Amino acid sequence: MRIVQKYGGSSVATLELIRGVAKRAIATKNEGHEVVVVLSAMKGETDRLLQLAMEAHPSPEPRELDSVLATGEQVSIGLFAISCQALGEKVKSFLGFQAGVKTDDQHGRARITDLDPARIRTELAKGRIVAVAGFQGINRHGDLTTLGRGGSDATAVALAIGLKADLCEIYTDVEGIYTTDPHICEKARKMERICYEEMLELASLGAKVMEIRSVELGMNYGVQIHVRHAHSQATGTLILKEDSEMEKTPVRGVTLSVNEARVTLLNVPDQPGVASRILSLVSKAGVVVDMIIQNRSFSDVPEGAKLTDFSFTVPLTDYPKTMELMEAAREEIGASRVVGDDTIAKVSIVGVGMRNHAGVAALMFQALAKENINLSMISTSEIKISCVIEKKYGELAVRALHEAFELDKLEG
Amino acid sequence: MRIVQKYGGSSVATLELIRGVAKRAIATKNEGHEVVVVLSAMKGETDRLLQLAMEAHPSPEPRELDSVLATGEQVSIGLFAISCQALGEKVKSFLGFQAGVKTDDQHGRARITDLDPARIRTELAKGRIVAVAGFQGINRHGDLTTLGRGGSDATAVALAIGLKADLCEIYTDVEGIYTTDPHICEKARKMERICYEEMLELASLGAKVMEIRSVELGMNYGVQIHVRHAHSQATGTLILKEDSEMEKTPVRGVTLSVNEARVTLLNVPDQPGVASRILSLVSKAGVVVDMIIQNRSFSDVPEGAKLTDFSFTVPLTDYPKTMELMEAAREEIGASRVVGDDTIAKVSIVGVGMRNHAGVAALMFQALAKENINLSMISTSEIKISCVIEKKYGELAVRALHEAFELDKLEG
Repeated sequence: MRIVQKYGGSSVATLELIRGVAKRAIATKNEGHEVVVVLSAMKGETDRLLQLAMEAHPSPEPRELDSVLATGEQVSIGLFAISCQALGEKVKSFLGFQAGVKTDDQHGRARITDLDPARIRTELAKGRIVAVAGFQGINRHGDLTTLGRGGSDATAVALAIGLKADLCEIYTDVEGIYTTDPHICEKARKMERICYEEMLELASLGAKVMEIRSVELGMNYGVQIHVRHAHSQATGTLILKEDSEMEKTPVRGVTLSVNEARVTLLNVPDQPGVASRILSLVSKAGVVVDMIIQNRSFSDVPEGAKLTDFSFTVPLTDYPKTMELMEAAREEIGASRVVGDDTIAKVSIVGVGMRNHAGVAALMFQALAKENINLSMISTSEIKISCVIEKKYGELAVRALHEAFELDKLEG
Repeated sequence: MRIVQKYGGSSVATLELIRGVAKRAIATKNEGHEVVVVLSAMKGETDRLLQLAMEAHPSPEPRELDSVLATGEQVSIGLFAISCQALGEKVKSFLGFQAGVKTDDQHGRARITDLDPARIRTELAKGRIVAVAGFQGINRHGDLTTLGRGGSDATAVALAIGLKADLCEIYTDVEGIYTTDPHICEKARKMERICYEEMLELASLGAKVMEIRSVELGMNYGVQIHVRHAHSQATGTLILKEDSEMEKTPVRGVTLSVNEARVTLLNVPDQPGVASRILSLVSKAGVVVDMIIQNRSFSDVPEGAKLTDFSFTVPLTDYPKTMELMEAAREEIGASRVVGDDTIAKVSIVGVGMRNHAGVAALMFQALAKENINLSMISTSEIKISCVIEKKYGELAVRALHEAFELDKLEG
C-alpha cells in the first residue's frame, strides 16, 4: 500500500517524540508499504514565531509572517529525517515548494491549487520514506504561503490524492472520532467508521479532530482517512464513503458548541430586503453568521403593524463587534431594540441515517424537554439537527441525547 | 548609490536590535540610496538548531541539516521586514532561492555558482528596501544549501556583484580592521583602507572580521567593501584595490594565531616521495596542513645516513588525530620518532609594501630576538612573513612587531 501519514504538533513536540514517530514510519515501511510522512511544527513553535512577529508589529504583513511561520515545519521534517538516519533509515525531506504544493495567493489561509509530487515519486521509487513539511506551499509568484489552521491535514490529504495513496493516516492525540466528547459524556464510544458527510458536520459543529477543508478534499477525491492516536497501536476511526450499514442508525454523533452568541433585532419591518441588509452589514465586517431565524413578533407592537424579530448567531469572538455594528445600524434598519445573548450553546445530532428515519427531531425535542431544557433556535440540514439552548444546560443536553439515541450501543 | 548592507548575528540578536537595523537601513534609503539588506540568523539560533540536529544524530545528513539551519535567516529577514513595516516602510524579504542564489552541491559549505536577482531588481525599481536571507542558496536539484562559516558575507558580496552595487557594507561588532588585535596591543590602530590581498592574508592568519571567500570574491569583481560597526556612525575600514599609497609602508598588520600545533617526524629517509607520502596521509584524513619544513637532521644519526626531520603545522583541533595517524604510519614512513607540540603560536606580519621594501624579514627577526623569542619555523609569501614561536610569547611578539614597524603611526 501507499500510505500518507500525518503527525500533528503534539506528536512531534520533542526530539524524543520525533524519534517515536520515526520508528512508527519505519515500522510501516518494513511492513512493505510506501510511506510519505507529513509533519506539523513542534508543538508551541508556531505560537512562539507568531508572538515574535506580533511583537514586531501587531498585524504583521501576511507574506512575511507566512515565511517566518513556515520555518516551524521546516525544522521538524529535518529533525525527523535526521532521527530516521539515526535509526539506520535513509529519508529525504521536502519543503512545501519542493514537494510541488502550489497554492493561491491568500497568505495565512492559502488553498492548494495544484500538486506536482514528481520528486516524492522518485524517492518512493528508490524505496525511501519521504517527509514533507505540512501547512505550507508556494504561490505563483514564488512566495511561501501557509494553509491556516489544520493546514497539515490539508497537505496530507492533497498528497494522498496526488500520489494516489491507498490510505491517509491522521495521527493525533485522541484515539479517533467519538460519538460525542468523552470529557462530557463518559459513555461516548469511539466509532470504527464514519462517512465524510457526518465528519464534515461534526467538524463544523465543534469536533476539533480534523479540519473541515481536508475532510471535504478527501470526500471529493474518495481518499480513505484513518484518524488514530500517534502513540497507540489501536485502530482509530476510518473516514470513508457512506454505506448502507451507517444508514441503519438515525443518529451517530452528538456535538456541543459553546463558542457562539446570539444577536436579536426586535421589531424590524417585515419587508423584503431587511434580512439581506442586516446580513450584508455583518458579512462586510468579516463575521460569519451561523443560524438565522426570523419570526413574527407579538410583543410591544402596535396592533396591525407588520413587524418581526430577526435573530442570528455569530462566533463568540465576533459578538462584541457585531453588537456595536447592529446598535449603530439599528435606526437605519428600523429595529426597536438590539438584544444579545452570549450565554448560549448549540447542541446538535448528526447522522446520515436521518434521511431515512422519521421522528428523529421529535425524539430530540422530547429528550431535551424531559430535562426541562428550553430551545430558543432550531436549524436542520439533511443529516443534522441543531438546537440553541442555555449554555449552562450544554453538557446535560449532550448526555441526554447520547442516551436517548442509544449511542453507547452504536455498532461500528 | 546602490548599497548592499550585511548585518551579522550579533546585530540582529533581539527584536530590539532588529528594529535598530531596520532604522539604519531606512535612514540609508532616505539619504537617496537603493538598499539591499542581507541578514544572518539571530545570534545563538544557528547553534540552537545545530544542537537539536546533533542530538538527533551526532553527524546529521548534510542536506537535512542545511534545511534546518536555513530557517535561522528565514526568521530574521521576516522579522526585519515586519519591523520595517512597523516603522512605516514597505519591505520585501527574499529567501536565498527567491533571490536567485544558486550554489553547487556541497552542503554545509556550498559555493555560489550563479545569481539571478531579477526579483530584487524589480522591488528596488519600486523604491523598496529588499531583505535577503544570508548564508543560504539552492542547488541544481532544488535543495537548500548553506554556505558555511561567514556565509552571509558571501551572500552580500555576491549580491553586490550581481546587482552592480556601488558599495557593500559589512556591519559587525567591531569598528573595522585594525593593525592588530586591540585586545593584545592597545596601540592597535583602525585602518581607513586596506587592500584585498592584505585582507586575505589577515583573514587567513586569524583576523576574524571577514571570511576569506567573500574577500576573494570581492577582489575578483572589484567590489568596494566597507567593514563597520553596526551600532556606531563612525567610518570603518574600506577594503579595496591596492594603491601606491599603501605600498609606501612595508608592513600594515600583525596577526597572531594560537590555534595550531606542530607535528615532527624525526629522521625520515631523505628521499623523493617521502614528503608527499606523509602529506597525502594527512590530507586524506581531511586535515589541512599550513606550514611545512624539511631540514637535515644532525642528531641521533649514524654518520653518513641520509636522513631528515620533517615538520608541519595543523589546526589544533586536528592535532590528536594527526598524531595518531603519524604514529600508526611511523614505521612505514621510516621515521625514528614522532614528536608533537601543541604549545606553539604563529605570529605574522602583512603588507603589500613588502614587495618593494628590502630588509623586512631581518627587522622582524631582530625585533623578536630582542625579546629573546626563538623561531622554530618560518614561512613567507610575497606580502607576509610568518614565524612559529612558543605560545607563551605570542602576545609579546605581537606588541614587539607592532612597535618595530611603527604601526601605531600608520597613516590611512
